[in-house]
Amino acid sequence: MSKVKLGVKNCLYPLPTTLVGANVDGRPNYIAIAHVGVMALKHISLSMNKRHYTNAGIKENKAFSVNIPSENLVAETDYAGLVTGKKVDKSRLFELFYGELENAPMISSCPVNMACRLHDIYDTQTHDLFIGEIVETYADESVLARTVVDISRVKPLLFDMSSKKYWSLGPALADCWRVGMTIKKKNRG
Amino acid sequence: MSKVKLGVKNCLYPLPTTLVGANVDGRPNYIAIAHVGVMALKHISLSMNKRHYTNAGIKENKAFSVNIPSENLVAETDYAGLVTGKKVDKSRLFELFYGELENAPMISSCPVNMACRLHDIYDTQTHDLFIGEIVETYADESVLARTVVDISRVKPLLFDMSSKKYWSLGPALADCWRVGMTIKKKNRG
Repeated sequence: MSKVKLGVKNCLYPLPTTLVGANVDGRPNYIAIAHVGVMALKHISLSMNKRHYTNAGIKENKAFSVNIPSENLVAETDYAGLVTGKKVDKSRLFELFYGELENAPMISSCPVNMACRLHDIYDTQTHDLFIGEIVETYADESVLARTVVDISRVKPLLFDMSSKKYWSLGPALADCWRVGMTIKKKNRG
Repeated sequence: MSKVKLGVKNCLYPLPTTLVGANVDGRPNYIAIAHVGVMALKHISLSMNKRHYTNAGIKENKAFSVNIPSENLVAETDYAGLVTGKKVDKSRLFELFYGELENAPMISSCPVNMACRLHDIYDTQTHDLFIGEIVETYADESVLARTVVDISRVKPLLFDMSSKKYWSLGPALADCWRVGMTIKKKNRG
């Protein structure tokens, strides 16, 4: 197989599109962020350009929410990424609720919400990498299978930079830490 | 909508499953890692438990590869996460090639490969968060639409912790920075 060189091209996609909520100047604000990461069971990261309006609110309150929108919120989610809180009041874009953290406004219409305490900021020239510790997770009953979040019911918006599109989640393929057991057994002889 | 409290539950999924390649003690090794993140256009993060065999090789050589396996490699990918290089020689699990970085072994059968220089390590008690700078990206012609990676042809393995399953990518839903324009126009009146 011959390989084509593409230059420096980030292909670590798709990533789940989130709506990050924070109080900025005492008013709830939301922004669409898909440059996220998982660091450990309780810790997640959000990469946010320093020009964004939301960053100051996260720094001031040391709290934010990460909300997972479903496919039916694709237009609202995209809109929250199109307009800045500097110019547009987004506080009434969504019905909100507060949980454990008084400065982490969460979006009722998103089926999953994580209230996060700001744990640390990894600073780069252009971006604040906000490292959050999840303090409490909230979910709609409609996306739970018993007490576990069923991602196929969440219907997340998967962001891909190359196509600049939101993609849907397809069917499950295989079980982790299991489908590879056949190779493990074969190699043992 | 009434919300159910789930305790501290990380729901920032799915994430793309990668095969991370590194030379450890002079021998290529691969590990399945899905706790990844995007930090900026050129920078990505990998969260790797300090117990893993691969970490020492990344630290020594300051280089690694991030390979994106397709659905057809699900068993091999899972296997690379099931067995440790401490006990099992995984150097011949995949046909490899080297690109710009002499210590970043890349997997020929993965349709997309990113050669990364180690930029920094964000240290936590249990995990090394390796921050990589992408130096060059390689792709199979079969997944390119002109010179752009077509994620629907890549067919990535999407990892979800709640279900402990690999999921497939579904159809595209909408264009980013566009589908929300209808709301923007409406709000302008």
